[in-house]
Amino acid sequence: MPHFLTPYQTRSNQQLEAWVTQHPFADHQLLKAMQYALLLGGKRIRPFLVYAVGEMLGTQPEDLDTPASAIECIHAYSLVHDDLPAMDDDELRRGKATCHIEFDEATAILAGDALQTLAFSVLADGELAPSAEPFRINMISELAKASGAAGMCVGQAMDLEAENRAVDIAHLQAIHQHKTGTLIECAVTLGALASGEKGQQILPALSEYSNKLGLAFQVQDDILDVVSDTETLGKPQGSDLELNKSTYPSLLGLDGAQQKADTLLQQALHALATIPYNTQLLEDFARYVVQREY
Amino acid sequence: MPHFLTPYQTRSNQQLEAWVTQHPFADHQLLKAMQYALLLGGKRIRPFLVYAVGEMLGTQPEDLDTPASAIECIHAYSLVHDDLPAMDDDELRRGKATCHIEFDEATAILAGDALQTLAFSVLADGELAPSAEPFRINMISELAKASGAAGMCVGQAMDLEAENRAVDIAHLQAIHQHKTGTLIECAVTLGALASGEKGQQILPALSEYSNKLGLAFQVQDDILDVVSDTETLGKPQGSDLELNKSTYPSLLGLDGAQQKADTLLQQALHALATIPYNTQLLEDFARYVVQREY
Repeated sequence: MPHFLTPYQTRSNQQLEAWVTQHPFADHQLLKAMQYALLLGGKRIRPFLVYAVGEMLGTQPEDLDTPASAIECIHAYSLVHDDLPAMDDDELRRGKATCHIEFDEATAILAGDALQTLAFSVLADGELAPSAEPFRINMISELAKASGAAGMCVGQAMDLEAENRAVDIAHLQAIHQHKTGTLIECAVTLGALASGEKGQQILPALSEYSNKLGLAFQVQDDILDVVSDTETLGKPQGSDLELNKSTYPSLLGLDGAQQKADTLLQQALHALATIPYNTQLLEDFARYVVQREY
Repeated sequence: MPHFLTPYQTRSNQQLEAWVTQHPFADHQLLKAMQYALLLGGKRIRPFLVYAVGEMLGTQPEDLDTPASAIECIHAYSLVHDDLPAMDDDELRRGKATCHIEFDEATAILAGDALQTLAFSVLADGELAPSAEPFRINMISELAKASGAAGMCVGQAMDLEAENRAVDIAHLQAIHQHKTGTLIECAVTLGALASGEKGQQILPALSEYSNKLGLAFQVQDDILDVVSDTETLGKPQGSDLELNKSTYPSLLGLDGAQQKADTLLQQALHALATIPYNTQLLEDFARYVVQREY
């Protein structure tokens, strides 16, 4: 993990912990499963993007905690459900047993459901800067749009359909744009909305940045599934191959995929160049995304 | 179905259909599964309660469509997930194949997920009366609270835990209060919030009404599981017994359960008596709840 991510990760972990432990049913098995899924690891990339965009716009971290926590709840729920036997059937996530293995399938389904609900509770009830209050509904709308049937959920459905059959590069890109791209784009949007009016002007540039960033992230994920090992990844290496999934390396070759990642990085950096704020942190992050080893 | 429910059911069906068919991925398998789960039947009791409370307060139906649709999306998602093999493992619902039987398990999980998200999209994006706009966030907060880990989700988890073991009447009541009660209470709350300021004063009485109503509904459900037949119910009769679930009839006897339902009905009517509006429709509905045969 690059050092610039660490303080955001720590902050995000503390915030998420508060949301799932200060709870009327904190000792119930359902909450234990939610805590397990939400708190045991994770890069906190989506919260980071909320914080990085907000801070670039001069917003205090405490005014970014709410959208940062909400979007990570959505991400965490999606992982719990994607790992289920009927979906990707994964037993290992971040080097630990997946939620349905550690608990049971029913509890994992419910924990995922309740983590999704928590995301919207957080966005409805959590604190925001006064200047961001007019954008609260907008944030809820954006998060729902990015994670529902026109975003993440249809992306996962498209991904499952693509198992055991050949898809072309445009189709693969559409899958990833929905499955992971919409939520990464949403993270930067939330960071801008939580910064009030001044976030509005740079939304198109941020959207372009995050669109390229999201794709680059996925290309690198596909590359790592080929070149890394299970211990480093914290999940089984070669799992894409096992599921007969089309990937960037399988369609473009390893060199082609690496070239693709680099092109996307340059496009992301190009989009940042039009933003009249200090974009250093977002630049560093884009470079990290295509250079990371897990 | 009593005749007073029909126009609300029709209106609710039209609204729900619009939300799941005017959609960028309307032809995708995921949306087909959402449409199937959302549109094939259902009494629309929660939408009815939204409309009934709102109309009592003088609010136009078109200003109640948004919360009515949102809460039914939550109910529909919960049925899809509750029917899954890892949960209640039901193959029949409303006389038709359950979603995971008609489609497949992965699609049913994702359709449930996306229906939950849709509920929050609807509440964030749907139309409301101008007087209700200040309460939009409040509605989202209430819906999330009622359906998440302090409400419906923990209720379903408690219900699963209670299979194959004896629970006492207080425990049974707690299960139902969370599993179905919180969402029924939420329906009347949403009807009041969608009516703006004037809904605020009667919230305590409405809450008492809906609390008793929700329990009465469940007691009658338990009774019907014993005395009705599969064809009338549209789901397997005797399924509680099969799962070794404690029910009101198993704890209180059939007569005791019927007496309990009647007491709850009287308490619900008593709460309505304090409301200075025309409560006829809500009264009729409470009577229907304990007299219905499916």
